[in-house]
Amino acid sequence: MVNATTPLRIGYVLFPALTALDLFGPLQALNFLSIKQNITLSLISTDLEPVSIDRTILDGVSQGMLGSSASPYFSQFVLPTHTFTDAALNDLDVILVPGGPGTRNLNATQPAVDWLRARMDSNSSSPSGGPDYMLTVCTGASLLARTGYLEGRNATTNKAAFDWVRSVEHADKVNWVPKARWVVDGNVWTSSGVSAGTDMMLSWTEHVYGRNASETARITMEWNALNQTDDPFAGLYGLA
Amino acid sequence: MVNATTPLRIGYVLFPALTALDLFGPLQALNFLSIKQNITLSLISTDLEPVSIDRTILDGVSQGMLGSSASPYFSQFVLPTHTFTDAALNDLDVILVPGGPGTRNLNATQPAVDWLRARMDSNSSSPSGGPDYMLTVCTGASLLARTGYLEGRNATTNKAAFDWVRSVEHADKVNWVPKARWVVDGNVWTSSGVSAGTDMMLSWTEHVYGRNASETARITMEWNALNQTDDPFAGLYGLA
Repeated sequence: MVNATTPLRIGYVLFPALTALDLFGPLQALNFLSIKQNITLSLISTDLEPVSIDRTILDGVSQGMLGSSASPYFSQFVLPTHTFTDAALNDLDVILVPGGPGTRNLNATQPAVDWLRARMDSNSSSPSGGPDYMLTVCTGASLLARTGYLEGRNATTNKAAFDWVRSVEHADKVNWVPKARWVVDGNVWTSSGVSAGTDMMLSWTEHVYGRNASETARITMEWNALNQTDDPFAGLYGLA
Repeated sequence: MVNATTPLRIGYVLFPALTALDLFGPLQALNFLSIKQNITLSLISTDLEPVSIDRTILDGVSQGMLGSSASPYFSQFVLPTHTFTDAALNDLDVILVPGGPGTRNLNATQPAVDWLRARMDSNSSSPSGGPDYMLTVCTGASLLARTGYLEGRNATTNKAAFDWVRSVEHADKVNWVPKARWVVDGNVWTSSGVSAGTDMMLSWTEHVYGRNASETARITMEWNALNQTDDPFAGLYGLA
């Protein structure tokens, strides 16, 4: 799959109030990987407007992650590079889905879910074959679950949000693994909350590009990695 | 210092080709902290144009972090909220400086260095008193060193870039600590590379807001923290 002349095309799904580190932790590993490897990045949203991080802005007032008690002036924005209607995205090799408080907004994330479902459907029916890998971080698993694509698969998600993710449409037919830093089932990689996504991405980097590439990225990041079965957080929520 | 009615005003210095996780790792801790605490965030740049992450865009072509071999289409952008000329920033309580390949561009980072020097000077002479805390991540220490403010202080920086940081103006009079996840000297906190900034920020959170606040942020992030003296990376560069 790794080819020196054909780039590996990586796409990240964006939505309002995604969690910063869900996006930029794994992206940091990919940023370092991109120094040596031929990869491209698309940051995909409903339009090209700046996407809010960890909270949404409504009527000019920031809405806190967990209600109105949050500081009103604490927000960041990331710029998309593509929209869901861009046909070029049909040929993505890798699709990543971050999590965050915004996943709880089913309406705001429906365009992302619809787009993901179309990509997954193309996996079996279209000549382009769909993505080679699907990776979700944290509650990003809820978006992939809502497409139905996780039915019958092993997957994991944020341990603090475990019960909520299991409650979304189609999620009842997923085998949710309660204690795992991340889970691999075929071409689907799902991680536990926030930081776990970066451990997963470094493992994925090793899987695709080899140990030298993943260790170079990890050391450059000075990242204190956990293994796939190391999950110190499941127990905190009665899941281990 | 922590006051329920007066917000703690936090400002982040931005410059082209800053490193993603240097910014968004510590910010993730602050994003979670902002749910309960009265804090504000300013993301400060020379203007309000999007700021490139991990690489710069020149003449429409992305310039790789470490030369022209990098993938040309792998970049992200973050939006500033303030410029260096905004007088309201004179009253910031906390100033953070990320690192990244962009720190090597002395011209592009000079506006940030000049602005930092003015803040540091105000620490002793102006009624507003200057910032209560200065924190740098990774090679962000080089910007603070160039102001002269680190002279005679203990500090640390990215271990892979240790020799380069020691070579910038005024850096020869700094006591650079070769083996440390982060270093605290008075109101100046400096961390080792990339991920170390988040460990430092969680420790700073404990220092200012207490253990419960820092542990809540760490657990929500599912962050595998290292302690101040845990530095598995110094030895890799012959520094331990």
